[in-house]
Amino acid sequence: MNPVSEIITIGDELLIGQTIDTNSAWIGEKMSMIGLPVKRIISISDNPDEIRTFLADSMQRADVVLITGGLGPTNDDRTKTTLAEFFKAELVEDETVLEDILHLLKLRNFPLSALNRAQALVPDNCRVVHNPQGTAPGMWWDKDGTVVVSMPGVPFEMKAIMETSVLPWLQDQFKTPIILHKTIMTIGLGESNLASMLEDWEKALPSNFTLAYLPSPGMVKVRISGTGDSEDVLKSTMAGLTESLVEIAKDYFYGFDDISLEELVGHLLTKNHLSLSTAESCTGGNIARLVTRIPGSSAYFKGSIVAYANEIKMKYLDVSQKMLSEYGAVSRNVVEQMAKSCLLHFKTDFSIATSGIAGPDGGSIFKPVGTTWIAIASKNGILSQCFQFGEHRERNVVKASQTALNMLRIEILKETIST
Amino acid sequence: MNPVSEIITIGDELLIGQTIDTNSAWIGEKMSMIGLPVKRIISISDNPDEIRTFLADSMQRADVVLITGGLGPTNDDRTKTTLAEFFKAELVEDETVLEDILHLLKLRNFPLSALNRAQALVPDNCRVVHNPQGTAPGMWWDKDGTVVVSMPGVPFEMKAIMETSVLPWLQDQFKTPIILHKTIMTIGLGESNLASMLEDWEKALPSNFTLAYLPSPGMVKVRISGTGDSEDVLKSTMAGLTESLVEIAKDYFYGFDDISLEELVGHLLTKNHLSLSTAESCTGGNIARLVTRIPGSSAYFKGSIVAYANEIKMKYLDVSQKMLSEYGAVSRNVVEQMAKSCLLHFKTDFSIATSGIAGPDGGSIFKPVGTTWIAIASKNGILSQCFQFGEHRERNVVKASQTALNMLRIEILKETIST
Repeated sequence: MNPVSEIITIGDELLIGQTIDTNSAWIGEKMSMIGLPVKRIISISDNPDEIRTFLADSMQRADVVLITGGLGPTNDDRTKTTLAEFFKAELVEDETVLEDILHLLKLRNFPLSALNRAQALVPDNCRVVHNPQGTAPGMWWDKDGTVVVSMPGVPFEMKAIMETSVLPWLQDQFKTPIILHKTIMTIGLGESNLASMLEDWEKALPSNFTLAYLPSPGMVKVRISGTGDSEDVLKSTMAGLTESLVEIAKDYFYGFDDISLEELVGHLLTKNHLSLSTAESCTGGNIARLVTRIPGSSAYFKGSIVAYANEIKMKYLDVSQKMLSEYGAVSRNVVEQMAKSCLLHFKTDFSIATSGIAGPDGGSIFKPVGTTWIAIASKNGILSQCFQFGEHRERNVVKASQTALNMLRIEILKETIST
Repeated sequence: MNPVSEIITIGDELLIGQTIDTNSAWIGEKMSMIGLPVKRIISISDNPDEIRTFLADSMQRADVVLITGGLGPTNDDRTKTTLAEFFKAELVEDETVLEDILHLLKLRNFPLSALNRAQALVPDNCRVVHNPQGTAPGMWWDKDGTVVVSMPGVPFEMKAIMETSVLPWLQDQFKTPIILHKTIMTIGLGESNLASMLEDWEKALPSNFTLAYLPSPGMVKVRISGTGDSEDVLKSTMAGLTESLVEIAKDYFYGFDDISLEELVGHLLTKNHLSLSTAESCTGGNIARLVTRIPGSSAYFKGSIVAYANEIKMKYLDVSQKMLSEYGAVSRNVVEQMAKSCLLHFKTDFSIATSGIAGPDGGSIFKPVGTTWIAIASKNGILSQCFQFGEHRERNVVKASQTALNMLRIEILKETIST
């Protein structure tokens, strides 16, 4: 049996919705990468009975139990005393920890309070784990074949403790199989249709490989995972599998390893010294926002006209009154004019334009809510296409933005390969 | 004993860190508000043995078990068949569910695949819970004194199912004490400072009332909760407490009950027949995006110039080369010019302008990353202010957008009261 781990998170704030547990996802990724995959995550309140019961259960099942939270200086944090009791230890003052605390307090110009001093008390039978970022140390026990580590719940303190001590110590202690993951990003096909497309491919997977689908609005991430003893063999099998999967799904594939479309487009524009502007109606500035999320985007993104009102389309993007009455604002003619003028006025290599009915109102039989025109313009001309994204306003904006960025990606690739 | 609930989330993506579990926090908040607080959250893989074992344990401890995830159409989702076995049910095709699926696919122009059709199969002894947003229905069992509900893990589908069916059904079934909540929205003060400000007020709370802080970047929601037998008494006590809390925090209070600033600003603009435009540099279109998230925003929002490059500030917003060299793009002069020109060219009653250093690069000793100028213009003149939001790019954009909307809110209130 390969060794596995569990996470126990302690604190009412997770149970009443005050805090979203981001620690567990971070820990889960790190532990899976060193071959000690997390099999269960359990969130409980800071109650001694709960802690004892669930820790005992986890120790029965797992080789490593990582506990986060409940180590703050205030009275509602009772994890340390409960763990000391559980492991039949006395709390004793640790000089090194006290020094750490004094050092940190001095940096922040705080005096040493009784509550701070109490944080230097540690169970006398644990291995003390240095906390480079805070006053609460981590604690490590190795008992009845299971490693139990308790860490503070503050994300940057937990991460520092994991990276400097816990992860390397665990790698030392456990002989684990090698695990590889590859994530393939797709856009434009729903999970079930993508799964149908990949059904035969999936059936032919070697037994040490698995496939998982991770959908979000408009996109599906596909993840291949493989386990084995030889990294070389795994890597070469993974490369072959990745290639064949991408070949089958090539019309929907856009990138690897969680890269976003805005990041990928940013790379392509930077690499080819190209610039971008947007003329947005239904997306309301969302494409500009996505593009500018990427650090360094000012190198290629000049700006945007958000033309929500028709008069703004006319004033800044040369859309005529005649065009609006004849075809309507949500039309090929209008979206192409928007893209063309945007390219011209902003003097960029590419422009994106959107015009659609985001909803909930404004739909008709001929143009129902969700109808969206998207155009991409460049010196080589204009490409435009009409989509039907559905009934949900916010998702329409998300899908229109992603689809536009994907159309731009394809155009950049075409034009930079052909030149 | 008051009834309690547990959450079981199913899916490898949570365990290997591919997805952060945001569902549980949302459910935890909602369940605590109807008096069925979540006591434990357990995340496991999509493995039949795991599902059986942990569901049986949860049913021993809790009155309600809410299961999310593992209901997708693909082969790696095995929750439905496992639950059918667990509850000794046959899977039968449900006509209503099939109709829902056909309707959704038609809207999206997708054909009915075998995998989609399989989603219409439901255990024959459960109460089928309509999914208004997707193809996988929810399932409700009431067995040995415990309610078990299984829902898809896609957040918007889960939320729709909870709000339209599960929460009201649970309230019907359980006789819980009356619980009232009032949420007070604040902006501009951190959690610990707000808590210090409200310390004496909190100490004087009646014993059946509690206070909770729910921070997010730049904002803190404060929630008062009261439990009792008489709704009238609770309501009147709550009204008094709310009034006194708002009075203490009046400089930071902006609204009630989870209203967003963009929604509140939308109400104010609509009510007073006023219009808005934005000229955005560092926020990159994010304010326009927030404003246009609100259905009906086309009635008051005309559009935006996202002037990311200086040449766009010059071309569209009359910022001069001299001004840029003399004061820099992140300056009072430039942001006021942007707001003034935006108001003029878009012919709106109000305009917002932003210019700042979002980071990670571009900072200096005099203007470190996070330095942000915001201006609000109207026929009565221009108000501008400089802020220091910190080192984190994405949070800088969020904070700048919220602060700008809050400044606009205050200006609209001033001008509509004085006229």
